[in-house]
Amino acid sequence: MPLIRIDMIEGRSPDQIKALLDATHRALIAALKIPARDRYQIVHEHPPSQFFVEDTGLGITRTRSCVVIQVTTRPREWKAKETFYQVLCHELEVTCGLSPSDVVVSIVTTTDEDWSFGNGRAQFLTGELASERSVS
Amino acid sequence: MPLIRIDMIEGRSPDQIKALLDATHRALIAALKIPARDRYQIVHEHPPSQFFVEDTGLGITRTRSCVVIQVTTRPREWKAKETFYQVLCHELEVTCGLSPSDVVVSIVTTTDEDWSFGNGRAQFLTGELASERSVS
Amino acid sequence: MPLIRIDMIEGRSPDQIKALLDATHRALIAALKIPARDRYQIVHEHPPSQFFVEDTGLGITRTRSCVVIQVTTRPREWKAKETFYQVLCHELEVTCGLSPSDVVVSIVTTTDEDWSFGNGRAQFLTGELASERSVS
Repeated sequence: MPLIRIDMIEGRSPDQIKALLDATHRALIAALKIPARDRYQIVHEHPPSQFFVEDTGLGITRTRSCVVIQVTTRPREWKAKETFYQVLCHELEVTCGLSPSDVVVSIVTTTDEDWSFGNGRAQFLTGELASERSVS
Repeated sequence: MPLIRIDMIEGRSPDQIKALLDATHRALIAALKIPARDRYQIVHEHPPSQFFVEDTGLGITRTRSCVVIQVTTRPREWKAKETFYQVLCHELEVTCGLSPSDVVVSIVTTTDEDWSFGNGRAQFLTGELASERSVS
Repeated sequence: MPLIRIDMIEGRSPDQIKALLDATHRALIAALKIPARDRYQIVHEHPPSQFFVEDTGLGITRTRSCVVIQVTTRPREWKAKETFYQVLCHELEVTCGLSPSDVVVSIVTTTDEDWSFGNGRAQFLTGELASERSVS
């Protein structure tokens, strides 16, 4: 379920994007304990004139490789979120050579009844998916 | 007010997209009792390499026609959401030939003060729109 | 931190888009008291067939210039949001010639732990950013 939107400046190859999505998914599995096939990822590419990321005065340098990762998910404990940020940056750096200073993350929280994974059913309400399973 | 983002793989014609948006709007009207002109729909098309939708282990088969529908709305009762998922899949199947197994929905909840429909005003706060009207 | 998505029909020049983003950022600084470098803006352009904005029966006329501005932010008081809608429309009209009737805004609320601005850290939790600072 976490639904992921990854926004970036255009120019990566399909293979580079695939590596980035794979790394993000590994981080979600490790930190949020989601099932392996709980994968919903959408990429938005932008010309440089349509993607502005500064640093809130934190002294973080951004490059053209910067990505903004927005995660919509059921509630997660703050500890799991913190772990996610760390593991995500590690995975992206090791696998894709992306600097941790180029990784911005925003999480949006929803509830069980806010998801239908197909067939017109709310699988967390019907019991097809266990409510507790992915709350870490 | 519900603001709808529909993400899909590129390739549909404008007419096909229009039919899909119309069907989605009919489902919102039927399930959430929104006014007919409460229509805010945005489509994002993606190359296949930038749109990954799996099944959380539910055994649901996806095709290239798969759509992810993200709805940002004021609070709705869970029963209305469940009805929306069902009516939406029915409308999309009957009108657009889209299989219910290709329909993923995610709902994000906001409050009255989070909306301005134009003119710099928060119409739910000013009383131009009744707060209760679209809470079903 | 507010993360801004601005959706519009395609056709604006990079300079026009820049002016629009600058105006939006000035409105956020004025109304939400965010730091000057707290700027995270993403633009999505769409063909007319993929961008539908009606008026919820409010009698608001839309043109091809219409923009939908979605703001993801930490909690803000309703008064600050109301101010934002007003200042935003004023800035966009004065600077970009955009009619207030063409400005739709949707706000999504998150919490401190939902943000990582880089380096795999949750800067509101680590104390690098003061939690109170941008809550107006």
